[in-house]
Amino acid sequence: MTYCLGICVKDGMLFASDSRTNAGVDYVTSYSKMHVFNPAPDRLFVILSAGNLATTQEIINIIQRDIDYPSGVDSLLSARYLFEAADYVGRVSQQVQQQHNSALQQAGVSGEVSLIIGGQIQGQPHGLMLIYPQGNHIEASKSTPYLQIGETKYGKPVLDRVLSHDLPLNDCARLALVSLSSTTMSNITVGPPYELSLYRTDEFQLASRCKFEEQGDYLIELQQAWTNGLIQSFSNLPRFEWESTEYQAALELNQIENPASIENID
Amino acid sequence: MTYCLGICVKDGMLFASDSRTNAGVDYVTSYSKMHVFNPAPDRLFVILSAGNLATTQEIINIIQRDIDYPSGVDSLLSARYLFEAADYVGRVSQQVQQQHNSALQQAGVSGEVSLIIGGQIQGQPHGLMLIYPQGNHIEASKSTPYLQIGETKYGKPVLDRVLSHDLPLNDCARLALVSLSSTTMSNITVGPPYELSLYRTDEFQLASRCKFEEQGDYLIELQQAWTNGLIQSFSNLPRFEWESTEYQAALELNQIENPASIENID
Repeated sequence: MTYCLGICVKDGMLFASDSRTNAGVDYVTSYSKMHVFNPAPDRLFVILSAGNLATTQEIINIIQRDIDYPSGVDSLLSARYLFEAADYVGRVSQQVQQQHNSALQQAGVSGEVSLIIGGQIQGQPHGLMLIYPQGNHIEASKSTPYLQIGETKYGKPVLDRVLSHDLPLNDCARLALVSLSSTTMSNITVGPPYELSLYRTDEFQLASRCKFEEQGDYLIELQQAWTNGLIQSFSNLPRFEWESTEYQAALELNQIENPASIENID
Repeated sequence: MTYCLGICVKDGMLFASDSRTNAGVDYVTSYSKMHVFNPAPDRLFVILSAGNLATTQEIINIIQRDIDYPSGVDSLLSARYLFEAADYVGRVSQQVQQQHNSALQQAGVSGEVSLIIGGQIQGQPHGLMLIYPQGNHIEASKSTPYLQIGETKYGKPVLDRVLSHDLPLNDCARLALVSLSSTTMSNITVGPPYELSLYRTDEFQLASRCKFEEQGDYLIELQQAWTNGLIQSFSNLPRFEWESTEYQAALELNQIENPASIENID
């Protein structure tokens, strides 16, 4: 399994991915799921991938080949808008899947791949898109500033509570690490090292690209701080009416009935 | 969709459920998914349900009928252990599903139901079990003190970070409400009112049973406190190395390269 996350805010974009890959539980390896393309000084793209590893690698290789031999073919070099780049990558994905589809179906294996592409082409705003296995795509927006692929559910609640279009990029990076580590805690098929890329709008190169190892100081410190923060937040939650001393005293004096009958819902 | 949660700790048990029921997005109604049986002074059971509503209602009706007419049939009255009660409920579930299976299959509808049963029979410890649609069951343990059915993923990370076998029951109740409201924020097919039941070991009756409305003061206060707590925890997370003023100063003086190349993972 995989968990990849793209965040698109006012100042730029943040890309995050885990790196655990498995074909069954006994063949667990580590692959980067983050692919950066900077084919010309006026454009930068980051592609995140979830799904069949062979399909992913072939898609990435074809994208690179089309940059290397650009004459007469669509490529990340020829795209004038981000949506054209997403459309092109979606077509490559469909082409690779269809090539192997009948053999994979016979083996009962899915060759599908979901992708996130984010980036910027000079003269255009930066943007983030999710490319479905079928090749079509949707775009992140101000009110939905993130897109996820893979094992998306465990890491979503914290995004829904904290993320906004105005969040600074370094905070987005911390948030992405929290979202990834929450997913890892609940699903062992998602795991570190985690990779992060940070892109500031109009720079056309990454501001930061880094990798966080499971036993690295920063990740251990972050996870400890987050768990402590949650436990602290939890201890500050409002008490139930029946926990108050007045209530307990009244209960003992039989001035009120017990809570089960008071708030009985039947 | 549905989200139900059972928690089994040292002091007793906590049961929680949402109440949104839908058959398609345009027939959304509200049903209780929490069923309490106290058929004799020496035993109490709570059953939570997720899945086909018709199957659920028939299962619950049969369980009640078998209590009302106990002669010669298995029932919640005749069970000597919790596992016997779970086994009995699993058999009722299978029987109801099989009765309607062929008609449902023709309509492409699933008649499956997942159940959680928790309770205590005098002389036995309290316990919590998940009954699969196939009728078999697993039990909660000290190291896995909770069981979930329905839309389980969004509400799991907070349980994994906070819950332990020693947590007091009122804290378990708050934790269950946080887990439910996180799920509702991320999936609109799970929604309030939320129901809670609290059982203290060896009491053979519920200590508390209550219902939290969406616009109720307590739920609004709890959600606000939790969101504020998360944002506070988030703001206390450790900063990245590249955010320090020393680092930024060194970067400006060209004493170090930019973070992208320093921590480049390629």
